[in-house]
Amino acid sequence: MSKIFKYERRANYHETDQMGVIHHSNYLKYMEEARVFFMDSIGYGYKRMEELGVMSPVIGINLEYKKSVLFDDVVSVNLKIEEYNGIKLTISYEIVNVKTNEICVIATSKHCFIKDNNICSLKRSLPDFHNAFDAYYKEKENEA
Amino acid sequence: MSKIFKYERRANYHETDQMGVIHHSNYLKYMEEARVFFMDSIGYGYKRMEELGVMSPVIGINLEYKKSVLFDDVVSVNLKIEEYNGIKLTISYEIVNVKTNEICVIATSKHCFIKDNNICSLKRSLPDFHNAFDAYYKEKENEA
Amino acid sequence: MSKIFKYERRANYHETDQMGVIHHSNYLKYMEEARVFFMDSIGYGYKRMEELGVMSPVIGINLEYKKSVLFDDVVSVNLKIEEYNGIKLTISYEIVNVKTNEICVIATSKHCFIKDNNICSLKRSLPDFHNAFDAYYKEKENEA
Amino acid sequence: MSKIFKYERRANYHETDQMGVIHHSNYLKYMEEARVFFMDSIGYGYKRMEELGVMSPVIGINLEYKKSVLFDDVVSVNLKIEEYNGIKLTISYEIVNVKTNEICVIATSKHCFIKDNNICSLKRSLPDFHNAFDAYYKEKENEA
Repeated sequence: MSKIFKYERRANYHETDQMGVIHHSNYLKYMEEARVFFMDSIGYGYKRMEELGVMSPVIGINLEYKKSVLFDDVVSVNLKIEEYNGIKLTISYEIVNVKTNEICVIATSKHCFIKDNNICSLKRSLPDFHNAFDAYYKEKENEA
Repeated sequence: MSKIFKYERRANYHETDQMGVIHHSNYLKYMEEARVFFMDSIGYGYKRMEELGVMSPVIGINLEYKKSVLFDDVVSVNLKIEEYNGIKLTISYEIVNVKTNEICVIATSKHCFIKDNNICSLKRSLPDFHNAFDAYYKEKENEA
Repeated sequence: MSKIFKYERRANYHETDQMGVIHHSNYLKYMEEARVFFMDSIGYGYKRMEELGVMSPVIGINLEYKKSVLFDDVVSVNLKIEEYNGIKLTISYEIVNVKTNEICVIATSKHCFIKDNNICSLKRSLPDFHNAFDAYYKEKENEA
Repeated sequence: MSKIFKYERRANYHETDQMGVIHHSNYLKYMEEARVFFMDSIGYGYKRMEELGVMSPVIGINLEYKKSVLFDDVVSVNLKIEEYNGIKLTISYEIVNVKTNEICVIATSKHCFIKDNNICSLKRSLPDFHNAFDAYYKEKENEA
C-alpha cells in the first residue's frame, strides 16, 4: 500500500441532484480526476500514456457512500495504490470533506492496460511509466 | 432473488469518451433509470415516493466492466431485487448488448430509505410501496 | 424550413439539480439525441457518417429557457432543419412538455462537416447523406 | 461592461467524447463554475444566495464554438457582466486556452432572480448582493 496522494476539489452546482446533494455518479469523476493529477505528480501523465498508445480503462469499481457532499463543499480525494504488479492496478480512495474532516465516500477502482486493443503489460509496453508506478507503490510499503 | 425487469436504452453520443466507448460513470445513470422504470412497472413510482417524503439514496455500488458499450448500441439493463427487508434494498443488474447478447457490465446497488433526514423503515413509512417491493421480491423466489 | 421530426424522452433523475429541475446543460444532450434519432429516421445514421470519416460538430448553440422540466416529465424534442446548403446546417428545436403541451425550451444548433480535420462539403464527401438531408429540408418547403 | 474575472480550470477526461474533444455541453458547466467563483470573489456566494431564498436560473444561453478544447488543456473562463439592472443579468464569457492563448468558446448567459417561485428584484430581495453585483458591473464602466 502506497503513501497518500491528495487531490482537492470543490463540489459543483451542476453535480447536485434534487435530493440537494452531489449525485452519486459524480464521485467516479472525482476519482478519475484524482488519478490524472496523481499521474502528473509522478511525472508520467495519463495524456502522454494515451499518446504513446496505452489506455488504462476501469475494469471494476466499488463505492460506499457514507455521508453526502453538498454544493460548495471542498473535498479531498485521498488516493493510494493498493496493488500494482505491472499488469493490474488497484487504487483506493477516501473522499473527505475538508472542513468537517468526515469521510464521505470510500472507494476502489481496478484497472488494466490496453495496447492495440489487447491487454498488455505496462512493464513491457511503457517501462518508464511502470517504474514510476512501482516506485510510488513501494515507497511507503518499505517505510511502513 | 426476484424475477427480472428489463429496461432497454440506447447508448448516447454524449456518453462516449475519447477511448471511443461509453464512459464508465454513465452506467450508474443507466442503473438509476432502470430503477425508476422498474418502480413505475410495479405501480409505485419513485417520483411519488419522493413526493410522499421518502427518498432512497444509494449507499453502495459495485461494478464489474466486462465489455465496452459503444455509441448507438442498444443495451438491456436487466434488474433483479437481490435482497429486500423493508429497511435495506439490494438490486443487481446485468447490462447486456441486445445485438450481440454479451454481458457488458455486472453491478449491484444498495439503498436505504430516508424520511425527515433519518433512516426509516419503508414498511412503516409507506406500506403500499413496501408491499409492492416485497411482492416483486418474493414472486420468483417462490416460483424457483 | 423542413417538416417536424419528434423525439420523445423522459427526464431522468440524474439530470436534476438542487433547484429541483432538469439542469440547463442537459438540454444540449436532449437535442443531440434528437439529431441522432432524426438521422436514423431518414436512413442515414450519424454513427455511419462518422464511420465514413465525416463528423458534424456543433459550432453554435442558442437556447431560451421558458419553463422548467421536472424529473419524470415526458418531453418531445421537435426538430426542424432551418437551413441546409451542403456545407452548413442549422437545426431548430422546441422542447415541449407532452402532458401540459407547454414549450419549455426553444433552441437552435449550427453544424459544419469535418473530414480529415478540415471543413468539407457534405454534398461532395457523402452525396447520399447530402441528398437525404436536402430532401428532408425541401419537402415541407415545397409543400408550404 | 464590467472588468474581467478569470477562472482557470483543467479539461477533464470524463468531459471528452469520441471526437476526441471536450463535449460541447460541458462548456455550460465551465460557465456555471466561473459564475460561482466570481460570486465568491465579490464576497456574495451563490450558495448563500440560495440559502437566503433566492435562486438565479439561466434563462438564455448563446455559444459559439471556435476551437476545440482537449483533455488536459488548461482553460481560462474570462467572465464579464454585460448588463445588470437589479432584475436581469447578462454575463459574457471567453473560454481561452491558456497555453496557446486561442479563444475556444465565446458565450453569454442571461439570468433572472426567483424568490418563492416568482421573479423578483435582487435589489429589493437581497440589497447586499445587488450592491455587490452593481459595484462590480459599474467599476470598469466608469474607468473606461
